[in-house]
Amino acid sequence: MSLLVLKFGGTSVGDVERIKNAAAKVEAEVRRGHKVAVVVSAMAGVTDQLIGYCRSVSPHHSPREHDAVVSTGEQITAGLMAMALQQRGLNARSWQGWQVPLMTDSTHSKARIMDVKAESLLKRIQDGEVGVMAGFQGIAGDGSVTTLGRGGSDTSAVALAVALKADRCDIYTDVDGVYTTDPRIDSKASKIPHISYEEMLEMASRGAKVLQTRSVEMAMRYHMPVQVLSTFANAVGSDLPGTLVTDGDDTMEENMVTGIAYTRDQAKVTLVKVADRPGVAAAVFGPLARAGVNIDMIVQTAGDNNTTDITFTISKNDLDRAKQVLETERANIHYDHISASSGVVKISLIGGGMRSHAGVAATMFETLADKKINIHAIETSEIVLGVLIAEEYTELALRALHTAYGLDAK
Amino acid sequence: MSLLVLKFGGTSVGDVERIKNAAAKVEAEVRRGHKVAVVVSAMAGVTDQLIGYCRSVSPHHSPREHDAVVSTGEQITAGLMAMALQQRGLNARSWQGWQVPLMTDSTHSKARIMDVKAESLLKRIQDGEVGVMAGFQGIAGDGSVTTLGRGGSDTSAVALAVALKADRCDIYTDVDGVYTTDPRIDSKASKIPHISYEEMLEMASRGAKVLQTRSVEMAMRYHMPVQVLSTFANAVGSDLPGTLVTDGDDTMEENMVTGIAYTRDQAKVTLVKVADRPGVAAAVFGPLARAGVNIDMIVQTAGDNNTTDITFTISKNDLDRAKQVLETERANIHYDHISASSGVVKISLIGGGMRSHAGVAATMFETLADKKINIHAIETSEIVLGVLIAEEYTELALRALHTAYGLDAK
Repeated sequence: MSLLVLKFGGTSVGDVERIKNAAAKVEAEVRRGHKVAVVVSAMAGVTDQLIGYCRSVSPHHSPREHDAVVSTGEQITAGLMAMALQQRGLNARSWQGWQVPLMTDSTHSKARIMDVKAESLLKRIQDGEVGVMAGFQGIAGDGSVTTLGRGGSDTSAVALAVALKADRCDIYTDVDGVYTTDPRIDSKASKIPHISYEEMLEMASRGAKVLQTRSVEMAMRYHMPVQVLSTFANAVGSDLPGTLVTDGDDTMEENMVTGIAYTRDQAKVTLVKVADRPGVAAAVFGPLARAGVNIDMIVQTAGDNNTTDITFTISKNDLDRAKQVLETERANIHYDHISASSGVVKISLIGGGMRSHAGVAATMFETLADKKINIHAIETSEIVLGVLIAEEYTELALRALHTAYGLDAK
Repeated sequence: MSLLVLKFGGTSVGDVERIKNAAAKVEAEVRRGHKVAVVVSAMAGVTDQLIGYCRSVSPHHSPREHDAVVSTGEQITAGLMAMALQQRGLNARSWQGWQVPLMTDSTHSKARIMDVKAESLLKRIQDGEVGVMAGFQGIAGDGSVTTLGRGGSDTSAVALAVALKADRCDIYTDVDGVYTTDPRIDSKASKIPHISYEEMLEMASRGAKVLQTRSVEMAMRYHMPVQVLSTFANAVGSDLPGTLVTDGDDTMEENMVTGIAYTRDQAKVTLVKVADRPGVAAAVFGPLARAGVNIDMIVQTAGDNNTTDITFTISKNDLDRAKQVLETERANIHYDHISASSGVVKISLIGGGMRSHAGVAATMFETLADKKINIHAIETSEIVLGVLIAEEYTELALRALHTAYGLDAK
């Protein structure tokens, strides 16, 4: 017998029929003898409708009131889910964030979880009740309702699982797991049955949108096993049909590369012939940070005559702003000219096995060279190898690398 | 400077534009120097939508979860109203029922208000903030969200006004006050500027749907002046443009009759030749009460040979059930036969002036006789005179009585 937290996202509870379908999954776990807590998102579309109301009342509305309005979406689903479970003969009760309480700081609309005081909820679960918590929301010290920011329900679920000392947190969603790469691009992509927190974090932050990085970070910190699985398949979480995210172990290090992610809509900016003196990086990146431009990769190459070329990548949307900032700062930075291009993509190989395997980079370079794909920039970390290439090669590069690293489905 | 509670019903906050319009009323009162608390209903249609969700998830859903879901409608409006006030440069904050807290008993879906602990809200109002409370909801002793039952927002508003020791509670709605009779039936009906709690209670319970009887009872108990007025007119509450409901006073006793209400869809049941013995009323009405049949008027007429005829009125919807009960109880009651007819209406004259004026009944009988309208039953109390007549005469009787008692608009 385990204690499980089951989280159902917006498409999994998109309408009344889907809520009933999700309730059937919960019942199946209860009938297997598990103790269960459920965390739900708002029904698909409800949050957008509520945000629409807020915008049309006032474009500059207070974040406190925004949270008061938007948090109702999850409260509705929580009540409906409890009813659907009761209809199946289960003992169930909804919990709004403040009722648990799930304590957060006061940063409305992107609050951080401080503590989940789940004693009352746990007591009722141990007595055989299914607790259904509204995700995405909490209560600040001053008694105001807060929300965790878009997608925060995953984080709610993991936080509740940690507080309940659950055995596993199952995230039911519209895909059946995390894939070696995007199946829409490479039909040979296969589901990864088991991935480490670190790999999952890199996959998520580099383009695999299955899980929120925040929730993975929390799971990693507290060693909470998280499974991503599909609401629309027949299996339930206890069958482990999805992708299980846990601490890394030996069996996981067989493959050099676990998955390949990609981030589109990147732009590359190169400052050519920057005066190579102490403090130049600060002169470049300080003003950009203050203008709200997020920098991703940074590459510096030594040049002649005490100059250097500084290349960095940013989101395509930030390109105009970045150029403006750099023009303004020209006198402080001292560079010859700016060379910028959008239309680049970052391809990232992720794998815990890189730690112990040699030759990962060599295989990548050979594979891309073989396809005549030029590399604009390279980034490496312990478990990641990232390259920037022209966006038009995205599919070709992904498929070739997927084959080269032995990830193709058998 | 007064402390006012302004309540806006479902049509007054029916969409975003109407919420903005209501916010303009609130601002006007604040700019006149008043301290203001606001109570809001759900946007028109939202509560029905939420109830629809509940029904389609489970026909026999738990009332606790019903309340958890349905209460979100008012929370949404409260947040949006606070935003709309902020947009107008006012300091404003929403309060959900549990945040005030408005304490109720645990009777979900028709909870009774136990206490409104409005100290924090009052403090902020006195500091110049507008408090916007979600109507219709509270919190039970066990921390569950409760609702007060349909239309309970009026009661929420009066209860908050009492707790804040407000000077007046203004109920903004889609009509501009309480009328001498239904203006859809009699175009000469006129708005009553001033009415006593007792008269209002009788008007409300006898068919005038402007105010919930519960809210009037509470206002009467705590002597809280309540004004009914239109959201869609230009005036604000401080101009006293609506109908003011207060304790009765001398100026109000000038007219014998303040208003005429009517209740359609009544049915009349007569038990003919009932054995006239002690306990017979209990034998008749006990089983009906247990079957959930609400009795309105009761008339007993002495007959011959130790028998009596017992006539009573009920809602037309209860007629079949009532007949069934009486057939089943035939051996206990001892009656000759049942005579029943639906298609009757109760016309009620209401007026504090009846206490001191003679001849009220005589005028009614003469007026109806003059129009050849037969009276099936009569009911009198200190400030009410009610008659049961055939439903087809409703309009004729209302108009004739309205003229006879000098109520026609000049």
